[in-house]
Amino acid sequence: MQSQKDTICAISTAQGMGAIAVIRLSGQESIAISEKLFVPAKEGKQLANEKANTIHFGSISDGDKDIDEVLISIFKAPHSFTGEEVVEIACHGAPYIQQQILQLLTKHGARLAAAGEFTQRAFLNGKMDLSQAEAVADLIASRSEAARRVALQQMRGGFSNELINLRTQLLNFISLIELELDFSEEDVEFANRDELTKLVDEIQALLKKLTNSFSLGNAIKNGIPVAIVGHTNAGKSTLLNTLLQEDKAIVSDIHGTTRDVIEDTINIEGISFRFIDTAGIRATKDEIETLGIERTYDKISKATIVLLMLDVNDPDKKIHEAISDIKKRLNDYQQLIVVINKTDLADASIIKQRFAIDSFHELSSTDTIVPISAKQQLNIDVLTNALLKTVNLSAIDNDEVIVTNVRHYEALQKSYEAILRVSEGLSNGISGDFLAQDIREVLHFLGEITGHINTDEVLGNIFKNFCIGK
Amino acid sequence: MQSQKDTICAISTAQGMGAIAVIRLSGQESIAISEKLFVPAKEGKQLANEKANTIHFGSISDGDKDIDEVLISIFKAPHSFTGEEVVEIACHGAPYIQQQILQLLTKHGARLAAAGEFTQRAFLNGKMDLSQAEAVADLIASRSEAARRVALQQMRGGFSNELINLRTQLLNFISLIELELDFSEEDVEFANRDELTKLVDEIQALLKKLTNSFSLGNAIKNGIPVAIVGHTNAGKSTLLNTLLQEDKAIVSDIHGTTRDVIEDTINIEGISFRFIDTAGIRATKDEIETLGIERTYDKISKATIVLLMLDVNDPDKKIHEAISDIKKRLNDYQQLIVVINKTDLADASIIKQRFAIDSFHELSSTDTIVPISAKQQLNIDVLTNALLKTVNLSAIDNDEVIVTNVRHYEALQKSYEAILRVSEGLSNGISGDFLAQDIREVLHFLGEITGHINTDEVLGNIFKNFCIGK
Repeated sequence: MQSQKDTICAISTAQGMGAIAVIRLSGQESIAISEKLFVPAKEGKQLANEKANTIHFGSISDGDKDIDEVLISIFKAPHSFTGEEVVEIACHGAPYIQQQILQLLTKHGARLAAAGEFTQRAFLNGKMDLSQAEAVADLIASRSEAARRVALQQMRGGFSNELINLRTQLLNFISLIELELDFSEEDVEFANRDELTKLVDEIQALLKKLTNSFSLGNAIKNGIPVAIVGHTNAGKSTLLNTLLQEDKAIVSDIHGTTRDVIEDTINIEGISFRFIDTAGIRATKDEIETLGIERTYDKISKATIVLLMLDVNDPDKKIHEAISDIKKRLNDYQQLIVVINKTDLADASIIKQRFAIDSFHELSSTDTIVPISAKQQLNIDVLTNALLKTVNLSAIDNDEVIVTNVRHYEALQKSYEAILRVSEGLSNGISGDFLAQDIREVLHFLGEITGHINTDEVLGNIFKNFCIGK
Repeated sequence: MQSQKDTICAISTAQGMGAIAVIRLSGQESIAISEKLFVPAKEGKQLANEKANTIHFGSISDGDKDIDEVLISIFKAPHSFTGEEVVEIACHGAPYIQQQILQLLTKHGARLAAAGEFTQRAFLNGKMDLSQAEAVADLIASRSEAARRVALQQMRGGFSNELINLRTQLLNFISLIELELDFSEEDVEFANRDELTKLVDEIQALLKKLTNSFSLGNAIKNGIPVAIVGHTNAGKSTLLNTLLQEDKAIVSDIHGTTRDVIEDTINIEGISFRFIDTAGIRATKDEIETLGIERTYDKISKATIVLLMLDVNDPDKKIHEAISDIKKRLNDYQQLIVVINKTDLADASIIKQRFAIDSFHELSSTDTIVPISAKQQLNIDVLTNALLKTVNLSAIDNDEVIVTNVRHYEALQKSYEAILRVSEGLSNGISGDFLAQDIREVLHFLGEITGHINTDEVLGNIFKNFCIGK
């Protein structure tokens, strides 16, 4: 069984070859273990005697054999990321050297850290609550401006503060109600029912707002799924390339863009859109093609936005049919953007008239038609604006608390259900002990988010998804 | 034109997502630029007032917008890697965040560093000579114990010291010889010719030893090429898997082994062997197969060791033919290891008798026959020992200077040619001015290695192969 008392170690920088790599230790033996394999450049220097937050040059040695020249940074409890003694060894970035040093550390008493174990210790040592710890992983995984921004805010306790505030107020009330129970024979009310009702209403509204923010939060975190429907010659790949170019232009000459990792995820003004290519739809008797079409329907059902790409040269009938075909498949919350491509091949004034939104009774008020030329890069900004319109940008800009985590979302939903019961109980004038029980339930679910209430299983599930070294 | 005076910045850790990443700045504005975007957690703290080798917690901000929480390390000239003011920013490991910070740094006056530019500055600022700077790249690229060891020794100046010693002695002599030239009418000899002859002999022997070490050095650095010849059913892939398992076992549960990068490179006791699979050889009229065979011959010609894999069940005639077939193709410096596989399917005493080395007049004294069972992992240690025998392990164990760099090798060869001319000149009693000229040439080529003599072109060629951030 792995103990909390162990000194743990891991490579904290990305895998592979870099100029340098950082190996991190945390635990009460961090400095002592490092001392065993560190030969300081300045003779007689002892890490144990050095101040916190200082850096020391020397070698890592295995007996007589020098492994590498390194810089060692020292952090002391409780003023470190984990709240424990922490040592960071910056070595040359050869994976081989990183492994050698890691092996030496384990030989001298450190244990390889589990995924997320450094952050878990930060949580267990009271350096941050659970929702903040989870935000660390989100921050590291952030691929867009909005995702980074929301994760940083959550890591800094923006979300926690709101919840702690709620908890404190509810705890006050509950103690008053429990006081009433002690004096139950005297039929007094220490907890003002009007004030409690007001508080419960406020909490109800806040919980509603937080749960509602999840659809935005989820989109920010995972990217907004956009299904592209249309035949290959409609210009899907040209459009994706055009959008990608704009995305790439932002990071221009910066080394190592992120888009290799998830294909066809495109950042537009800080929001990630995940473009999902589909096989296109048309009536068919071919069995294999039918299978392809079913997959297309499946992809469409999972998308927030559906981009239907059509050719300006298609006759009106074909265009209307394609639109009503797709529209039949869409739910209320899904938005359709009809992209009329290849406008460079047609007259501008005719296009304007022909594709006026009024001419399409099939479309609802939230749907749009955007004529573009993917090839000539005409009107692309209108299309990106149409995509961005689906996102509540003002919530992000105003740094409102946005829930991005399914676990939080579920706990908030349960809190909301419990607060509804409190609210009903208050209207029905139920007795203090039942009221207290429902309020305790709200507190329980809110506590799950911040980690005031936690189990090993919950912690295990959360931290196993972290990267090693964090 | 990029200036030496610029403050440069780059991501110094490996690309991709890690728990943390490190961005490095070097140049006289490093601290001033960092100050512009750093908001210290401790209000009023100024990086410029902080001591060297200290670490500071805070945020990186773009105006009102916080980008990330970071640790900033400060190093001051001349006590830094580059000899300049250096700042290292440790941020969360999201590639997106790394890029944002890098962009902010360039916005505030830093320039993106070219490949190897930090190390180039260390060289130009006299922190290390050129051969040491080159060893930094070798150390980072090292994939085996021997490569790491030789690179570290070179980085620490082991090679440079030998060369500087030679240069100093030669410079002493040359000044004496030039003094003679001033007094040429008086026909004096300040430079004792016997002593000079002795020194030249010593230098000649040392240069010979150094150039000779290159074949080992090259093998250490790039791995020893081993061509495997044999039909697929001879068990080539089983053997490779068996060898790989032993290699992997060393790094067992350590995260992220290196072998994904170059396939079929296997470390055996700290030495890399590059296994090159070939198509096998047999007489054929098929045009495509002939092409394959030519490629096989080409691969064989580039190998240091050829592993011929045969099946214990093959008849004697077939085995002898295969051996003499291959043997015809090999040069003197190439070693043949005949691997008789599937010994688990035959009687041990019969194998011993049948494959005694004496029974094979085709083989020379450096060649070997090794009966193994790749599947049952029998006798694999005998095979790995046969592979290791090709390497001069004692030179590595004794930390002798081993030349690993083609550029050094070529300069050493030219120095050697020049010192031969000095030697001949001395025997023939040529005049001091000719002698001085030849000695100057030796000095020139030795100086090229350490960088006492360098051109922008040479530096450009060397550092362009570095990774960015080093």
